[in-house]
Amino acid sequence: MSKILVFGHQNPDTDAIGAAIAYANLQQTLGKEAEAVALGTPSEETQYALDYFKLEAPRVVASVKDETSDVMLVDHNEFQQSVSDIAELNILAVVDHHRIANFETANPLYYRCEPVGCTSTIVLKLYKEASVEVPQAVAGMMLSAIISDTLLFKSPTCTPEDVAAANELAEIAQVNIEVYGLAMLKAGTNLSDKSVETLIDLDAKSFTMGDKVVRVAQVNTVDLNEVFDRQAELETVMAKENQEKNYDLFLLIATDILASDSELLVIGEPVSNVEQAFATTLTNNRAFLPGVVSRKKQVVPQLTESFN
Amino acid sequence: MSKILVFGHQNPDTDAIGAAIAYANLQQTLGKEAEAVALGTPSEETQYALDYFKLEAPRVVASVKDETSDVMLVDHNEFQQSVSDIAELNILAVVDHHRIANFETANPLYYRCEPVGCTSTIVLKLYKEASVEVPQAVAGMMLSAIISDTLLFKSPTCTPEDVAAANELAEIAQVNIEVYGLAMLKAGTNLSDKSVETLIDLDAKSFTMGDKVVRVAQVNTVDLNEVFDRQAELETVMAKENQEKNYDLFLLIATDILASDSELLVIGEPVSNVEQAFATTLTNNRAFLPGVVSRKKQVVPQLTESFN
Repeated sequence: MSKILVFGHQNPDTDAIGAAIAYANLQQTLGKEAEAVALGTPSEETQYALDYFKLEAPRVVASVKDETSDVMLVDHNEFQQSVSDIAELNILAVVDHHRIANFETANPLYYRCEPVGCTSTIVLKLYKEASVEVPQAVAGMMLSAIISDTLLFKSPTCTPEDVAAANELAEIAQVNIEVYGLAMLKAGTNLSDKSVETLIDLDAKSFTMGDKVVRVAQVNTVDLNEVFDRQAELETVMAKENQEKNYDLFLLIATDILASDSELLVIGEPVSNVEQAFATTLTNNRAFLPGVVSRKKQVVPQLTESFN
Repeated sequence: MSKILVFGHQNPDTDAIGAAIAYANLQQTLGKEAEAVALGTPSEETQYALDYFKLEAPRVVASVKDETSDVMLVDHNEFQQSVSDIAELNILAVVDHHRIANFETANPLYYRCEPVGCTSTIVLKLYKEASVEVPQAVAGMMLSAIISDTLLFKSPTCTPEDVAAANELAEIAQVNIEVYGLAMLKAGTNLSDKSVETLIDLDAKSFTMGDKVVRVAQVNTVDLNEVFDRQAELETVMAKENQEKNYDLFLLIATDILASDSELLVIGEPVSNVEQAFATTLTNNRAFLPGVVSRKKQVVPQLTESFN
């Protein structure tokens, strides 16, 4: 049996790293030679969680076929969000909570996807099904992932299962969810020392909509002004990315994690689809989206629909 | 909430129909308005099981969007094996044991795939996870599906989980696995009253291998002579199908379910790939394959490999 690498998506968020650590740990306990790796360095939010629970950040890999052919994916399935040589690998398992697209295997595999708010919520089920106890630090990372993905249960993607899993994990991790959760989320909103290039790439995903390629980035903040004070600079860099990477449209969602609202910044064409999708009019390339915090539920489907 | 239709693949086998009945029953018990339907009429093997357990055959549908938009798939995922309007439907769930390919959704869904021998083995797990009891007749259909997919546990696709599930289901269904299983399998081997056109389409799937389209049909029998007595007729019809449907190569696997061996009949080109794949030489377009009973594990991968 060859070594198995377990990893989440590119531009890893706390779930991509937390679920990889947790699922790799489960596989190890079940006797497999598994290692959690990552397709990028942890964000400050994720690093806060790793430091809090005294864990090392997973090793960063850019390709894996020179190491092994066997991999397990967490928190993603679309090949363009995965490791560069994914199409040449043997995918043994996927644990995810997203739509399925641009994904294909040659062989039967283990695929566990549920429409819940966080991959780590599903991974907790897998521990229970295998009757394996979750170690304290691993529970802390899984809890952090749920808090991150659901914005402390405020996102519409959050389900009762996520809340129940978080409560159970908080017990094992021995933290107060509200106190720890807000501190962790705030650690991820320190934007001032980041270049605009970094900002628009912190948590960004590409989507094909109709015949357009749409880039949707999201940043969390406790003060929207901190983002929009640099609007001119952001617009320049987004336009440059559109040109260099052949994106047609670039959306930056700045999300106020305390107020649970977002403000959009849009560069590229067609903006009419954005206006139609959110029943709004862009002013100065911007639109305020009250109550919007979830890219997956409140932005991507609406925008996709406007292209159909 | 709109009605949910639950169905297996085209040319339904006993698992496609049995797993659909079982998964729809589970959904109903969980409060959903679900109905098992089928993309074709039951084979004689499946009809034997339905009659034995006093169940009606599921209603046959050719498209579903005029009835509902919500569907759940069992025992398949590839769109070309599914209902004609699958791309326009909202897929809520998939329970399957095949590779994933040509499958895509717009939204997160429930997807449960495990590399076991039969979908019904996974469906039994879902009953247990939901703490729902399996009704006797439903258990009978699930057992029939496992017997069918694993050829009474003789197929290399069979896993210990399939055997354990079958034993548990036989208890509920109150049948002797060996006695009932052989009778059911034999009911599916009544080939004498079928035209050769029907024979080569009973359980046939198309595959793209290299730049060739390969059709692989399989028939079960208790006497290989019953198939090869009609060899000349079969060859004529297979050649005709190749021409009309643009298949390059047509393989008919005649499987002796008592001896657990198969004999191949091959029409089209390149036959050299077939000979290479099975390390054999075709004589009179035929080759005996000792121990081969599984298209999925013992024919398709070997043949695919020979084209790479």
